[in-house]
Amino acid sequence: MIYIQAITGKKVNPPPVWLMRQAGRYLPEYMELRENYSFLDFCNIPELACEVTMPPIRRFNFDASIMFSDILIPLVPMGAELTFEKGQGPKIANPLRSEDDIQTISKIEPRESLSHVLESVGMMRTELPKQTTLIGFAGAPFTLACYWIEGGKPDPFANIKGLMYSNQPAFATLMDKLANMVIDYLTAIYEAGADAVQLFDTWAGIMPEHEFKEFNLPVLKKIFSGLKAKGITATYYAKNSHHLLDSLKHTGAAVISLDWRTPLSEARDIFGSNIAIQGNLDPTALLGSEDRIRSETRRVIAEAGDKGGFVFNLGHGILPMTPISSVEILLDEIRGGGSH
Amino acid sequence: MIYIQAITGKKVNPPPVWLMRQAGRYLPEYMELRENYSFLDFCNIPELACEVTMPPIRRFNFDASIMFSDILIPLVPMGAELTFEKGQGPKIANPLRSEDDIQTISKIEPRESLSHVLESVGMMRTELPKQTTLIGFAGAPFTLACYWIEGGKPDPFANIKGLMYSNQPAFATLMDKLANMVIDYLTAIYEAGADAVQLFDTWAGIMPEHEFKEFNLPVLKKIFSGLKAKGITATYYAKNSHHLLDSLKHTGAAVISLDWRTPLSEARDIFGSNIAIQGNLDPTALLGSEDRIRSETRRVIAEAGDKGGFVFNLGHGILPMTPISSVEILLDEIRGGGSH
Repeated sequence: MIYIQAITGKKVNPPPVWLMRQAGRYLPEYMELRENYSFLDFCNIPELACEVTMPPIRRFNFDASIMFSDILIPLVPMGAELTFEKGQGPKIANPLRSEDDIQTISKIEPRESLSHVLESVGMMRTELPKQTTLIGFAGAPFTLACYWIEGGKPDPFANIKGLMYSNQPAFATLMDKLANMVIDYLTAIYEAGADAVQLFDTWAGIMPEHEFKEFNLPVLKKIFSGLKAKGITATYYAKNSHHLLDSLKHTGAAVISLDWRTPLSEARDIFGSNIAIQGNLDPTALLGSEDRIRSETRRVIAEAGDKGGFVFNLGHGILPMTPISSVEILLDEIRGGGSH
Repeated sequence: MIYIQAITGKKVNPPPVWLMRQAGRYLPEYMELRENYSFLDFCNIPELACEVTMPPIRRFNFDASIMFSDILIPLVPMGAELTFEKGQGPKIANPLRSEDDIQTISKIEPRESLSHVLESVGMMRTELPKQTTLIGFAGAPFTLACYWIEGGKPDPFANIKGLMYSNQPAFATLMDKLANMVIDYLTAIYEAGADAVQLFDTWAGIMPEHEFKEFNLPVLKKIFSGLKAKGITATYYAKNSHHLLDSLKHTGAAVISLDWRTPLSEARDIFGSNIAIQGNLDPTALLGSEDRIRSETRRVIAEAGDKGGFVFNLGHGILPMTPISSVEILLDEIRGGGSH
């Protein structure tokens, strides 16, 4: 598996490539299946989760496949009343607003209450080609807390920041409960067949660095050291994190996945050679001309350098309006092997 | 005017303070007026714009007052069909989608088609205390283009990026038309009574630095040199711009206003002593405990250093759910003069 080689620091040429949300709405196969099933069906019915995971591998032979699910799924057995309305994003009908709410959160045993996810992971591993890495994932505690406390799209983060700034012990309790869940959940996913895992911290970047260190870094260290102790290689995706680079170095993650704002060469300089990097083409670059897609792809690869430890990806999920032909151009540029 | 002293590099202790969106929804006076008038009424009727500008000055004696308006107002005479629906944000019914659309944009003479704004500026200047600076403002071309091309809230920026990446000449034409409007508009606002101006570039941070230099920096240089030639001191607010600091140094703005992600000490190191800074308390800090508000306020002031050239502000607009008491605590901490 060239993805595993790359994230353990080896030089792989051309680099492995996969795209965040690669199974999603830009694919006609996905849209066709969605006519008959809801997004939550995709997450909850193992056969469907497995079926929707395969089209991008068949079409593009990506080097890794990410399990189809949503970061909020494990919050359901913990007590969140989660729904997805079309075009609205997630809603949680019973958001956490008080210390009492946080006390009521259930500790879960993923092998029981999330057995459907683990079953889908096993099916995906069986179905995928041997050389294709299966990546399991979870949301990072801070990002999960954002959704759970705000009850949906978190911007402007008023309730979570209000809690953080006025009742730090309650906030710390919540983060710790979520961190324990994440470790147990990712361990179970790994044991069910995933080859590596990724932690998504979409909202990490809303904090300045001194707050990131105070409120987020401690649980990240706990998670990545917990996973490492079990031999699980983990990637940390921190969106909008240029101001956090010095701290990202200390999370303990084997791989740091960055968005398009951070030049990968700058990340390399700060992280050194013991941390692999993943990224970071702007998803909107795939809406541009062929020339622009090719030149931006070359720029990302050049910025990653030639020392290995690099996985090509987007800086965030692929956009629903992305033309299939843009993905083909991208892959041709990466894998073309100097024909351009 | 201590605001003018500070932005021209002088040391002022305590520093001048005002808050972005200080006239907005957190104030009962604003909410009461809104029962009878729409947001666009506030922007379009000079007496109302003037009336809604005054309460924060009366309550808190801020050192500066920003004219009440919206960055999208000048797009109306240029051809945009703009509406604001409650809780929905701005909508433009006829978004720019093609080169032809861009060609149809009208060149405007602000003294004619935006005379109501200029009239309100004159009224505000008359009404405000002498020592209170009146700040005029405009949206930066890139941020205006985001709204106009997307037809509303721009995320995920698919149409504007698609245009930028596939038809750069058309995009450059649009940016240039907007830059010319901004120079003419801010000049007219200055001549109508504003003491200084601020350019809001809310979405500047979505571009990586190499694109910022390619697509945004040239028009910013044109605007700030154009204003400087007329003796107008201008602030550039670039949200989410930690990855752009090296380029922000070269915009030509006299003052750079930063969000809470960038430590002001880091900005000082990069900008040197010829650029004043404004910022940058996280607006959500005002949702925390009194202790947190005071310690965060002290941190911002300490990071700004003691060399002058500093205006205290938030890193973005004050949030509607901010308690009045938090603003009082903030001002007491800034102006208390070492009593804590």
